[in-house]
Amino acid sequence: MSGKIFPTAQDAENAFYEALERCDLEGMMAVWAEDEDVVCVHPAGGRLSGQDEVRESWAKIFAGGPRAQLRIEQQVAISGMMLAVHSVFENFTLPGEPRAEAQPVPVIATNVYLRTAAGWRMIVHHASPAPGQPQAAPRDTGPKILH
Amino acid sequence: MSGKIFPTAQDAENAFYEALERCDLEGMMAVWAEDEDVVCVHPAGGRLSGQDEVRESWAKIFAGGPRAQLRIEQQVAISGMMLAVHSVFENFTLPGEPRAEAQPVPVIATNVYLRTAAGWRMIVHHASPAPGQPQAAPRDTGPKILH
Repeated sequence: MSGKIFPTAQDAENAFYEALERCDLEGMMAVWAEDEDVVCVHPAGGRLSGQDEVRESWAKIFAGGPRAQLRIEQQVAISGMMLAVHSVFENFTLPGEPRAEAQPVPVIATNVYLRTAAGWRMIVHHASPAPGQPQAAPRDTGPKILH
Repeated sequence: MSGKIFPTAQDAENAFYEALERCDLEGMMAVWAEDEDVVCVHPAGGRLSGQDEVRESWAKIFAGGPRAQLRIEQQVAISGMMLAVHSVFENFTLPGEPRAEAQPVPVIATNVYLRTAAGWRMIVHHASPAPGQPQAAPRDTGPKILH
C-alpha cells in the first residue's frame, strides 16, 4: 500500500484529516491499518469493515473533489502502548456559504489507532453528526499517557 | 462509587449492557471510569464528558424503566495491555411490537475500556443509529490480543 510511517498516533491523525480535507484517497488509505478488522462508521452510515469497504466508501466521498475546509477541535486523547483513542469534533466550513445555518453541523469522531510494525495506523473511525452541539471554546487538554 | 471489579474488558462490557437493559443507573455508573475524560455519545446526540454529564444522561434514558430487550452482536474486539476497543451492534427489541418495522433500528457502538487500579472500566461509549444496516449473521471473531 504505502510506505508511510507515522511515529505517533497524532501523526496518523494529522495525516487522516489532511487526506480528508484534500480528498486524497491514497493519503487516506495510507493511514489505515492493513487489517480485516478495521471499522469505519461515517456520519449517519452503517458499519464498514475491512480495507476494501473502507476504501470504496472514501472513494465515493472524495469523488466530488475538495470542497470543505476542516478544523479539528476539543480533542480528548488517551494513549496506551499499543492503542490510542482520540475523541474530536470535526468542523467543516463550506467556502462561499457565509450564513452559519448553511454550514454543515459539526461531527463527533472517535478515532482509534494501533501501533503496528509500520508505525501507528487507524483501526477505527466512528463519526456521527452532533446536532445542536454548542460551539464551545477549544478544550485541547494534553494527551493522557498510560505508559 | 462502587467497589465492583471487572477483571476483563469483556466483563465490563457485559455489565454495561446488563445495566442498560435493566435501566440500572448504579450498575451503569459502576462500569464507567472515575475520570473527567470519559466520553459518551448517545445515538443522534452530542458529546458528553465527565461522570456528571454521563450519569445525568443515563438517568434520563432510564427514567421510564426497563422496556426493550437487548441483543449484542457482531463484536469486533481489539485489546492492548491498558486499552481495549469493542465495536458491536446493539439490537433492541420492544416486546409486544411484533412488526419488524416497529422495532428500533440497530445501534452501532464503539466502546473503549481502560485498565485502572480498580479493574477494567469504560472510558468511551460512542453510539449511532445504523439505518438500513443489513441484519447479517453474527460475526463473533475472537478478540485480537496485542500482548
